[in-house]
Amino acid sequence: MTHFADRLAEAVRRCANPVLVGIDPRVDSLPTGMLAENNRTDLAKAAEAYEQFSREVIDVVAPLVPAVKPQAAFFEQLGPAGMSALGEVIRYARQKGLLVILDGKRNDIGSTATAYARGYLGPQSAWQADAMTVSPYLGDDSLTPFVEVAGEVGAGVFVLVKTSNPGGAMFQDLLIDGRPLYRHVADYVERLASQTAGECGYGCVGAVAGATYPAQLDELREAMPHTWFLVPGFGSQGATATDVAGAFDSKGLGAIVNSSRGIIFAHRREPYAEKFGDARWQEAVEAATREMIEQLRDETPAGKLAGSG
Amino acid sequence: MTHFADRLAEAVRRCANPVLVGIDPRVDSLPTGMLAENNRTDLAKAAEAYEQFSREVIDVVAPLVPAVKPQAAFFEQLGPAGMSALGEVIRYARQKGLLVILDGKRNDIGSTATAYARGYLGPQSAWQADAMTVSPYLGDDSLTPFVEVAGEVGAGVFVLVKTSNPGGAMFQDLLIDGRPLYRHVADYVERLASQTAGECGYGCVGAVAGATYPAQLDELREAMPHTWFLVPGFGSQGATATDVAGAFDSKGLGAIVNSSRGIIFAHRREPYAEKFGDARWQEAVEAATREMIEQLRDETPAGKLAGSG
Repeated sequence: MTHFADRLAEAVRRCANPVLVGIDPRVDSLPTGMLAENNRTDLAKAAEAYEQFSREVIDVVAPLVPAVKPQAAFFEQLGPAGMSALGEVIRYARQKGLLVILDGKRNDIGSTATAYARGYLGPQSAWQADAMTVSPYLGDDSLTPFVEVAGEVGAGVFVLVKTSNPGGAMFQDLLIDGRPLYRHVADYVERLASQTAGECGYGCVGAVAGATYPAQLDELREAMPHTWFLVPGFGSQGATATDVAGAFDSKGLGAIVNSSRGIIFAHRREPYAEKFGDARWQEAVEAATREMIEQLRDETPAGKLAGSG
Repeated sequence: MTHFADRLAEAVRRCANPVLVGIDPRVDSLPTGMLAENNRTDLAKAAEAYEQFSREVIDVVAPLVPAVKPQAAFFEQLGPAGMSALGEVIRYARQKGLLVILDGKRNDIGSTATAYARGYLGPQSAWQADAMTVSPYLGDDSLTPFVEVAGEVGAGVFVLVKTSNPGGAMFQDLLIDGRPLYRHVADYVERLASQTAGECGYGCVGAVAGATYPAQLDELREAMPHTWFLVPGFGSQGATATDVAGAFDSKGLGAIVNSSRGIIFAHRREPYAEKFGDARWQEAVEAATREMIEQLRDETPAGKLAGSG
């Protein structure tokens, strides 16, 4: 059983890019024909369409990128049928060789946190994710159960530190002894990361740090040398490749950059809408993925990966 | 469609007690015979047992208390089969006249938060909960989608403010301008509550405030006059009825007090283990529930409810 960060580093090196494709299916954005108009409120039919759509996204991106990030919320929205679809999507992605980071931002205390961790993390668990996102508000005894299980099963945990949304500043930027709250969370996460470092130098505990705050990414990269970053906010939230450059270490490792709508719904935005349209939506997904890979290779230290593969 | 806080106030008055029974099934604590030893790692069998156990708990407590709180984590731990069981448990509890507060501590940004809210809240949603718990780290634009949907469908949201676990202090007690972080979160939650107040004076936004910090409960009660409290930590986490007294208003409203293991697994602790044992575990649940009701009536302002019904 290989350490999660080492598996992630290996996958990023093998693909020579750090792109994390977010799987966020939405009823209103699926390609035409995948879910009939009169089935949109049928939870089972919608769940079936989400599964099909997600599998077809995975078919396109599996040869190109190291990892995918299914967003639990959209599957949960469809009730138990949606959760069955989520289980299938995770299984299918892993079967295709992708690492799967489940974005569920779970959090709880003690044995309840352990239940989440045991349920979601590792190949013996019910959901079989390689890693999951968690929220830190409940403090250390809410995070350590995730860290312990992750270490035991070769999985990873990404703790919310500095999120990409404007409202994230409301509490995360409050100053405590002259330093914002997110830096205090970062200190704790880095401690967990350094305690769990694998051969690549990174721990099985990572941090979510938004691409929409480039200066903070630089600052956090310096403060958190053992912490792999999951960077949301690229593309549809407005951040560019240049904005995320600071998240990487000098070898081009240490960060994976997420794009969700910008890739999976590329058929709905220009230039892909005109070029491919709904009928050739998978080609739009491929083109958008390749474009993001190129941008990150051109504008960030991830460009160094291309030579090292 | 009645306002959530008014429905909660009505249910608490009708039952003349503020007990919230936590439904936290665990494979290792189920009554003997409900899950055969050799089926413990069979997720579908375990999910079936959780559903049966939860229904039988609900049968006992439905005539006694206003609300139940299923803990999502334990159902999620069993994968899709567990989620189907959770759906059935919520449906069954509502059918028996109980309010259902789903404890999932969900949180995300923008349209993802909306997906959680639309999926879980209200009778038209996939899961049909009356209310859910949410985590505040992501800030205002992560909470308002829950509040908007809750208001629209007559549901409620309980935001983590001051949690019952020792580690909760790690971030929640950090001082910002001389006041701990949880007080800043509390100010925002109270603002949302006052903006959404129903006829009973409480908003559809409540707060999770742990019974293990009695002084803070007093302080928060004073600072949050429109905010209904969900109080965990009673019983197995060590808090007593006296500890939670400060969470109530002078009429005995404004707080519901949760007990999970202390009630549902009462057959495993004294004096109930000896008196009822495994075979009569439902009687243990009933006795433990009645004992908690009496303690809260004797030691807190909830005693005033008994005269008002």
